[in-house]
Amino acid sequence: MERAMKICVIAPVILEGKTPPSVLAFAPAARPGCEVEVVFLDRGPASIESEFEEAMAVPDTIAKAVLAEDGGADAVVIDCMLDPGLDAVREKVKIPVIGPAQTSMHLAAMLGDRFSIITVVERLVAPFRKRARLYGVIDRLASVRSIDVSVLELESDRGATIQPLIKEALAAIEVDGADVLIFGCTGMSGMAAAVQEGLQANGHADIPVIDPGITALKLAELMVDLQLAQSKQTYPSPPSKVLIGYNG
Amino acid sequence: MERAMKICVIAPVILEGKTPPSVLAFAPAARPGCEVEVVFLDRGPASIESEFEEAMAVPDTIAKAVLAEDGGADAVVIDCMLDPGLDAVREKVKIPVIGPAQTSMHLAAMLGDRFSIITVVERLVAPFRKRARLYGVIDRLASVRSIDVSVLELESDRGATIQPLIKEALAAIEVDGADVLIFGCTGMSGMAAAVQEGLQANGHADIPVIDPGITALKLAELMVDLQLAQSKQTYPSPPSKVLIGYNG
Amino acid sequence: MERAMKICVIAPVILEGKTPPSVLAFAPAARPGCEVEVVFLDRGPASIESEFEEAMAVPDTIAKAVLAEDGGADAVVIDCMLDPGLDAVREKVKIPVIGPAQTSMHLAAMLGDRFSIITVVERLVAPFRKRARLYGVIDRLASVRSIDVSVLELESDRGATIQPLIKEALAAIEVDGADVLIFGCTGMSGMAAAVQEGLQANGHADIPVIDPGITALKLAELMVDLQLAQSKQTYPSPPSKVLIGYNG
Amino acid sequence: MERAMKICVIAPVILEGKTPPSVLAFAPAARPGCEVEVVFLDRGPASIESEFEEAMAVPDTIAKAVLAEDGGADAVVIDCMLDPGLDAVREKVKIPVIGPAQTSMHLAAMLGDRFSIITVVERLVAPFRKRARLYGVIDRLASVRSIDVSVLELESDRGATIQPLIKEALAAIEVDGADVLIFGCTGMSGMAAAVQEGLQANGHADIPVIDPGITALKLAELMVDLQLAQSKQTYPSPPSKVLIGYNG
Amino acid sequence: MERAMKICVIAPVILEGKTPPSVLAFAPAARPGCEVEVVFLDRGPASIESEFEEAMAVPDTIAKAVLAEDGGADAVVIDCMLDPGLDAVREKVKIPVIGPAQTSMHLAAMLGDRFSIITVVERLVAPFRKRARLYGVIDRLASVRSIDVSVLELESDRGATIQPLIKEALAAIEVDGADVLIFGCTGMSGMAAAVQEGLQANGHADIPVIDPGITALKLAELMVDLQLAQSKQTYPSPPSKVLIGYNG
Amino acid sequence: MERAMKICVIAPVILEGKTPPSVLAFAPAARPGCEVEVVFLDRGPASIESEFEEAMAVPDTIAKAVLAEDGGADAVVIDCMLDPGLDAVREKVKIPVIGPAQTSMHLAAMLGDRFSIITVVERLVAPFRKRARLYGVIDRLASVRSIDVSVLELESDRGATIQPLIKEALAAIEVDGADVLIFGCTGMSGMAAAVQEGLQANGHADIPVIDPGITALKLAELMVDLQLAQSKQTYPSPPSKVLIGYNG
Repeated sequence: MERAMKICVIAPVILEGKTPPSVLAFAPAARPGCEVEVVFLDRGPASIESEFEEAMAVPDTIAKAVLAEDGGADAVVIDCMLDPGLDAVREKVKIPVIGPAQTSMHLAAMLGDRFSIITVVERLVAPFRKRARLYGVIDRLASVRSIDVSVLELESDRGATIQPLIKEALAAIEVDGADVLIFGCTGMSGMAAAVQEGLQANGHADIPVIDPGITALKLAELMVDLQLAQSKQTYPSPPSKVLIGYNG
Repeated sequence: MERAMKICVIAPVILEGKTPPSVLAFAPAARPGCEVEVVFLDRGPASIESEFEEAMAVPDTIAKAVLAEDGGADAVVIDCMLDPGLDAVREKVKIPVIGPAQTSMHLAAMLGDRFSIITVVERLVAPFRKRARLYGVIDRLASVRSIDVSVLELESDRGATIQPLIKEALAAIEVDGADVLIFGCTGMSGMAAAVQEGLQANGHADIPVIDPGITALKLAELMVDLQLAQSKQTYPSPPSKVLIGYNG
Repeated sequence: MERAMKICVIAPVILEGKTPPSVLAFAPAARPGCEVEVVFLDRGPASIESEFEEAMAVPDTIAKAVLAEDGGADAVVIDCMLDPGLDAVREKVKIPVIGPAQTSMHLAAMLGDRFSIITVVERLVAPFRKRARLYGVIDRLASVRSIDVSVLELESDRGATIQPLIKEALAAIEVDGADVLIFGCTGMSGMAAAVQEGLQANGHADIPVIDPGITALKLAELMVDLQLAQSKQTYPSPPSKVLIGYNG
Repeated sequence: MERAMKICVIAPVILEGKTPPSVLAFAPAARPGCEVEVVFLDRGPASIESEFEEAMAVPDTIAKAVLAEDGGADAVVIDCMLDPGLDAVREKVKIPVIGPAQTSMHLAAMLGDRFSIITVVERLVAPFRKRARLYGVIDRLASVRSIDVSVLELESDRGATIQPLIKEALAAIEVDGADVLIFGCTGMSGMAAAVQEGLQANGHADIPVIDPGITALKLAELMVDLQLAQSKQTYPSPPSKVLIGYNG
Repeated sequence: MERAMKICVIAPVILEGKTPPSVLAFAPAARPGCEVEVVFLDRGPASIESEFEEAMAVPDTIAKAVLAEDGGADAVVIDCMLDPGLDAVREKVKIPVIGPAQTSMHLAAMLGDRFSIITVVERLVAPFRKRARLYGVIDRLASVRSIDVSVLELESDRGATIQPLIKEALAAIEVDGADVLIFGCTGMSGMAAAVQEGLQANGHADIPVIDPGITALKLAELMVDLQLAQSKQTYPSPPSKVLIGYNG
Repeated sequence: MERAMKICVIAPVILEGKTPPSVLAFAPAARPGCEVEVVFLDRGPASIESEFEEAMAVPDTIAKAVLAEDGGADAVVIDCMLDPGLDAVREKVKIPVIGPAQTSMHLAAMLGDRFSIITVVERLVAPFRKRARLYGVIDRLASVRSIDVSVLELESDRGATIQPLIKEALAAIEVDGADVLIFGCTGMSGMAAAVQEGLQANGHADIPVIDPGITALKLAELMVDLQLAQSKQTYPSPPSKVLIGYNG
């Protein structure tokens, strides 16, 4: 059971300069027969580190998802750990729509007792706690920790990020009681192996470190293979209605 | 302790034709010394009955809230039971931002054991359950029921709405075990007394029926009087950043 | 929408000596047109710092509330953070009955992710956790902290209380992760501004500090304005019955 | 490990006429070596069917418990399914204090997946749901059902109660999904066997029916045998303080 | 990112007669490059419809999983909706161990608001509710319904099962409020499409119907691709110790 | 109400050497008229410190329980804090089956606000958190702490265990906020008094310390006295079926 498929990864930000490494990592991660198309927004923020920026990314994320479905995509992955527009997009299309936060939190809840999220900036603590509450896993969340680096800095000097990630991951395990770790930014894609090594060197072998963007892509493949998508009882198609300001 | 104050009510929809009665109801409900300013959106949907429409209303709701704060408003009320943009707006301004759904659900949880929401259309069941989950009151939610009337129909023939509301309210009490009722659309403003009478005529006296828009306005007054607003630990001001497509 | 109204504040203790400043603070906090009447108990404890004292305050609190309703009061506020007799009083009267603990915990849950209660004595940790559980907000409670001062000492030297309050508030934010603070004793009324300043001086601006007694008064005003009261489905009027020992 | 012991059963009501059968049932239920002393209140309600009556029973229940401890009792059982004064009494004495509602709900949670409470009057639905919430077992509560008979009627014609109890018990199992039943009034003591037979005759063998008063007595014996009592960290002894109106 | 891999599907029952169709369905469902090996037990029950049978299946399931890991398997799928031995096996091996119940319940929680499980026999209601509680999704469980057919009957006449499945699925949606359905027996494998068609014919299009065995297989592939496995902080390797009776 | 009774204590391990003191403690703890029979396994692990060992103990624990019921036992106690086979045994017999973990966690939830478990080895943290979740008391669990001693070491040098137990108990109270303590291994039986003394010497008087094995025995007595047992709606008798490998 393996279908040729096309998955659209929506990076819900505008692209300034070249495509960041974390976005380039999707295509190689797809399985043979799965074509990955990456789209950036025309309208939206340069990066997402707040509920405000998340909100400003949503309208064009929706538009890009509708285009993707019309263009024959089999699934959509929204490449941001705040899952911008997840529920709205799910109403507008019938193909499965996958969010990295929802995916990685549920996966973490399957892999161990409690998980921690290691993210970029402290100000994301409340947004992640809100999503854990919304997804029903707040009682499995050991902590949210940050390395105090902005998303754009992260992309510009990836090497500098590994040690702080290991330091916070160790604290999550030893102080907060975490059994599983989730990267709190899809921009950290590709760093899981190095963090896991660092943990092992400090006596914590075989702690799963979830790379949420790639994990969301693989869950999208799974959904397409299984012909599963969001329930239209929960996410019915919106009514036709006058809507001003989003067509041009 | 009573201050002169100005509260901005943002109707997060575009206005076509004349101002609906439910919006006109805000100003008379304000206390002396409280000036109510109502603003509609320039960009957005004609009404909100889905997560999609909620999302499309958010960017201009944020813009209007920022304008309101800059213009000296003391608080913002978002006039829609899906609380569009509540958290995003709270990051962008320091004045209190009040959502009818959050307000009325918490109030209902104070007034009785379980509450039901009587809304316009069945498709809003999941969005209301999501918000009850998010606000931490899902275990107090007896049911969400609908009268199968769209928002725009509701505004056009308000008299026809009372009997269906009473019918669903009775079912909520007698079948679902509700102790308190909340209108699931701010367009139902002004109908609480008639519904309460209908309940009383059917043997259910003194059941609170919460009119969420007006209730949100009064909570805004309370917040201003008490000099309270959302925590900036939870809702810090977003970083400055390139944002394309929202300036013109 | 503003009615002339009378709110009865029941201080559920006996008064020895002069009225404490925290009780005197109610009348000035009421809005124009709202008359505040304060009553003390004839039978009960000198202060409330235990479930035992709470229980001993309830019978006369109920009696005073019934008198208030008979005397034309529009609402009752019970001036104690243990909400003594809240549910029993709600059965006996039809006017809204407001408790500071229930009010401030729900308000805190609206204003931020997690809240802490800063109270007088350590022995109140369990009673507050019990009430947070009862009101359905235990998962939003970051911590209960105390300044180790009895209620009666608090009233006698209010200036000495500010620094300890700031110290515990800082610990609540920095160690326990609180986003919102609630005073755990209505005797702390009037100290919120000073605590907020202390927090700001330590790098935590715009953290809401809830003064529960005054907040309960303002919620009572809101209830009367909106003609809302507790549900008689949850709090039906008690049956008539022989009751010995409470009439003389 | 079996100690001679004395258990004080406080019937938190005033006694008018002769001791009801449900109270007479305690002594025969005690084990050899366990002396049961029953006390009624001097001040309080004739029966308890509301939060109000519960509250009015508490002060003298506390006084009777203190007397019992001073008189050498090893444990106290409060003979009412609303557990009047449970926490307050636990502060005032060091001997274990047992409430039938808390005991039977936790026992039910051990014996099956979900339980229902079959009580006397509909108005007790909210008080029982409140206690289930407080004791942390609300998600195990399938339903609260009532037979529409007052406590005093119940005591006067016990035979008439069995069939309605069986009818509601059957509905609890077949409609609400209950696996375990709890009598929602200690006055129903002694009826469990008959109800269980009725259930068996209707195809539901081996459904536990918990008789809460007697169960509380047996848990008191267990506590004394094990030298366990409530934690004084949760229920510290109240401070000494002026208390007016409860000495004469 | 696609590895050659070998997944061991343990059917935790003894095989009498020929391999049932639901087990034969695994190999075709695997993706190219993924070899599926199915093993049955030497010691254990003929089918699993109780906690007792689940328990009797566990020791040999563990043994088979250890053999699989020693033999080079990359992951283990336990082919039974009671997830027999899931946690014990996870301690004994380092490769990912996947259970259909845990997988499908978390997936359902991602795809819609509430899910129902349609299983074979009524006696599985409590075991499924227990697992939903354990996995943290009990508040998303709308209902457990059964078609009153034993596992072995199910395998012997698969055609007869479709109509009862559709009937209960409709009731789950229309009466219980389910948005997503899960088959409550891996023996129902292959019937999802027919059930979904039946729902569509009754006005419920696009309701996900999860086939738990196949879904578990695909999640195992995902885990291997992502190099993820259960946390060894939660599931550490058991100590070496005398163990009698399981070696021959 | 006291019956002659026989309780079978199943020590779910094989016995090598002489009976450990903790097992010898059961008979003296029974009340007059209660005969205690202790059985060890023929097949199973030497001790239980993992989910794996728990699982390997279950089949023979079930067999021993069935033998006990056939032999006239009135109740079964499973002498291990992981409650091995609790639900499976409950299906196979009609007499009450009592597990120390379930019993002591519910009892702790009755005796105070939060409890901690002090166990032998760190690796039991996740298994105890799993059981707290399953029994519905996870939000009352302050912490799980360990003294880093294996079960077999514990039995061989009991005196050396007291000081580490006191140390961790103090940390549970002072750091984690525990109000009640539970021993996390039935092998610690008999040490509660010494630990309580140690706590008292450190300023924490009257903190309950629950000895789970003995407590389970006393709850078994209570169940027999009250003629209560697990619900057969939750734990129905398993169907007859081929089962290979467990008869010889």
